[in-house]
Amino acid sequence: MADFDLDRCIRKIPDFPKKGILFYDITGILANPQALTHCIDAMVELYRGSTIKAVAAIEARGFLFAAPFALRMNIPLILIRKKGKLPGKVIGKKFSLEYTESEIEIQPDDVPAGADLLLLDDLIATGGTLSAAKELIEKAGAQVPEIFGVIGLPSLHYEKVLPGVRIRTLIQYEGE
Amino acid sequence: MADFDLDRCIRKIPDFPKKGILFYDITGILANPQALTHCIDAMVELYRGSTIKAVAAIEARGFLFAAPFALRMNIPLILIRKKGKLPGKVIGKKFSLEYTESEIEIQPDDVPAGADLLLLDDLIATGGTLSAAKELIEKAGAQVPEIFGVIGLPSLHYEKVLPGVRIRTLIQYEGE
Repeated sequence: MADFDLDRCIRKIPDFPKKGILFYDITGILANPQALTHCIDAMVELYRGSTIKAVAAIEARGFLFAAPFALRMNIPLILIRKKGKLPGKVIGKKFSLEYTESEIEIQPDDVPAGADLLLLDDLIATGGTLSAAKELIEKAGAQVPEIFGVIGLPSLHYEKVLPGVRIRTLIQYEGE
Repeated sequence: MADFDLDRCIRKIPDFPKKGILFYDITGILANPQALTHCIDAMVELYRGSTIKAVAAIEARGFLFAAPFALRMNIPLILIRKKGKLPGKVIGKKFSLEYTESEIEIQPDDVPAGADLLLLDDLIATGGTLSAAKELIEKAGAQVPEIFGVIGLPSLHYEKVLPGVRIRTLIQYEGE
């Protein structure tokens, strides 16, 4: 498995979504069944036998890796979505992005009380959204000992805003 | 498989996202590994041995069923997203929703030329977004002989706006 060249399936798009940002596009993984299989196999290998009892995924690209992972692990999948997208009883958390404010929500009744959750997104950059998501999960009564991203940009120092969490990624790039 | 009670995993939320709409919430399926497994098994059973060579999924809830299905079927997954979300070369299609206009996009270079695609969303209501998505896929050079939704609201007459397509769902409700 380790010899699969994931890098060639990740397109690098300059100036997206705005000038100066190099965007790492995971759709090339999805379009290649061998690449998606590689990612999910690697994720199952990382967390099989761990204390993880459920996975929480950040909208929308996180859903693409979390759903096959949840199915393979036979564990619940909890969604973390932008404000107003989840129906019924929700709790929310506001947080700051680079120049704006955002708010995410979770359905607390679906969070297994006291359990260890894996928090997942496709790419880990500054860790701002993940940090807010972790707080939401804790507010709902569970713990987040582990965070996973297919791609990590460690030079953006996400480790600093996510203390006490084990963060694992399949491939790392230098952030810009 | 046929004896699984999917209905009890679908929460019905009145007046969401606005007054008068009864929202069918699929997060109860995701939170129940047995229910998600049931859905994906049923989908694989429906399309195994068909001419389908790839699956196209509508953002964001469609991703949750399309990704495990693509993995199990070992076929490419193509995303259909709201304008501005997909990087690189895209083609778009504007369409009307009840009171507003919307636009969706696809990355045409990932669409397998001349192939049969399954188009997928979590719920099929009026069929407006699916009809626009089908046109986009055809513009990109492929065909859509089959559409799948976990939930169907046939009383909203989606069959009428999707002529010549075989539409299959796992559970049907009376739309409001």
